[in-house]
Amino acid sequence: MSEQIYSAKIPEPALRRLPWYLSYVKLLQSQGESIVSSTQIAKKIDVSASQIAKDLSYVDISGKTRVGYEIEELINVLESFLGFTKTHSAVVFGVGSLGAALLSDSGLEQFGLKIIAGFDVNASIVNKRINNIPVFHTSEFIQKNEKINAEIGVLTVPPGIAQEVSEFMIHGGIKAIWNFTPFRIRVPEGVVLQNTSLYAHLAVMFNRLRS
Amino acid sequence: MSEQIYSAKIPEPALRRLPWYLSYVKLLQSQGESIVSSTQIAKKIDVSASQIAKDLSYVDISGKTRVGYEIEELINVLESFLGFTKTHSAVVFGVGSLGAALLSDSGLEQFGLKIIAGFDVNASIVNKRINNIPVFHTSEFIQKNEKINAEIGVLTVPPGIAQEVSEFMIHGGIKAIWNFTPFRIRVPEGVVLQNTSLYAHLAVMFNRLRS
Repeated sequence: MSEQIYSAKIPEPALRRLPWYLSYVKLLQSQGESIVSSTQIAKKIDVSASQIAKDLSYVDISGKTRVGYEIEELINVLESFLGFTKTHSAVVFGVGSLGAALLSDSGLEQFGLKIIAGFDVNASIVNKRINNIPVFHTSEFIQKNEKINAEIGVLTVPPGIAQEVSEFMIHGGIKAIWNFTPFRIRVPEGVVLQNTSLYAHLAVMFNRLRS
Repeated sequence: MSEQIYSAKIPEPALRRLPWYLSYVKLLQSQGESIVSSTQIAKKIDVSASQIAKDLSYVDISGKTRVGYEIEELINVLESFLGFTKTHSAVVFGVGSLGAALLSDSGLEQFGLKIIAGFDVNASIVNKRINNIPVFHTSEFIQKNEKINAEIGVLTVPPGIAQEVSEFMIHGGIKAIWNFTPFRIRVPEGVVLQNTSLYAHLAVMFNRLRS
């Protein structure tokens, strides 16, 4: 209950910074540290100490002003708050080059994303397994998802069918779409959309390299 | 020359929107269209027509007020401006789950990123090939990069060694780091840093799903 109250309040930029803090305090823990102050995090992360204290105030943890945060507690609370300790079932639509790569990336599961099936229309991949995850024909999705109840759909189809496939996913019960295509899809209110455009990031990197 | 002048001027948010326009006009082209207006793009992309016209003004193309842009020219100019038509050589540091997945993703090459080698310290992967790309021992990087001259380094190592490995990459001639780790690395002035935190995106998606 308190988790829901907190998570409704936190602004997205703060939420995006939390994994940086988590990553750094895990490093400190591996070095044998047990207490960390926001000033100490600030020195490494390029975010001001007051911003860090404010960001962490959204999470259910209390630092002591002159002492700091207990590292073990901070790690547990952040991992839980960020949803990394819960398993979220996902399916991947479009098992081409990127989709297959995501199926192969077992690391996502450590962060709470469990890919349980892939869907594609390409006969050469349908009914195969990648990293022991089955790939089904797209036409089987509605029926399969009644059993597997995946909430998250990873979208790695060609951009030309991204909108159409996302509507199909939502029709089959998907509540959040992780869109890796460069296409700007639209979703109805209440459906979560997260865009991760590797190509936009590439473009920014290439542009800065030139200038 | 003109490319450099333009690329120095464009703000990052505009640059990040350009791949959306590119993706949509490519779709229109596949549907047989030859002309597109900013109003028409605006309807599909959720960006105002005036913003689109402004974003496209950074690119060396001129639309005719009442007619629009020639789609073929717009595609060519955008792909070139975004750097997708030029080959940028890259190496991947850390051939674990995500690193190996990126080596397998041949799709990146269509957007100008050619991964030519992987580097790792794990004996079980060193001197193997993934997607026909060789994986070398990290200690060989400085010497190898004198020959292969990769400008871009993709960072997919464990977060605890992210800073150290990025310094090593820069020492070996890397000019831009594409950081997939959740660690907030620091780079010297003049080195390009692009963070793509899949885990931060997951956290935002999980959080919104709950609320």
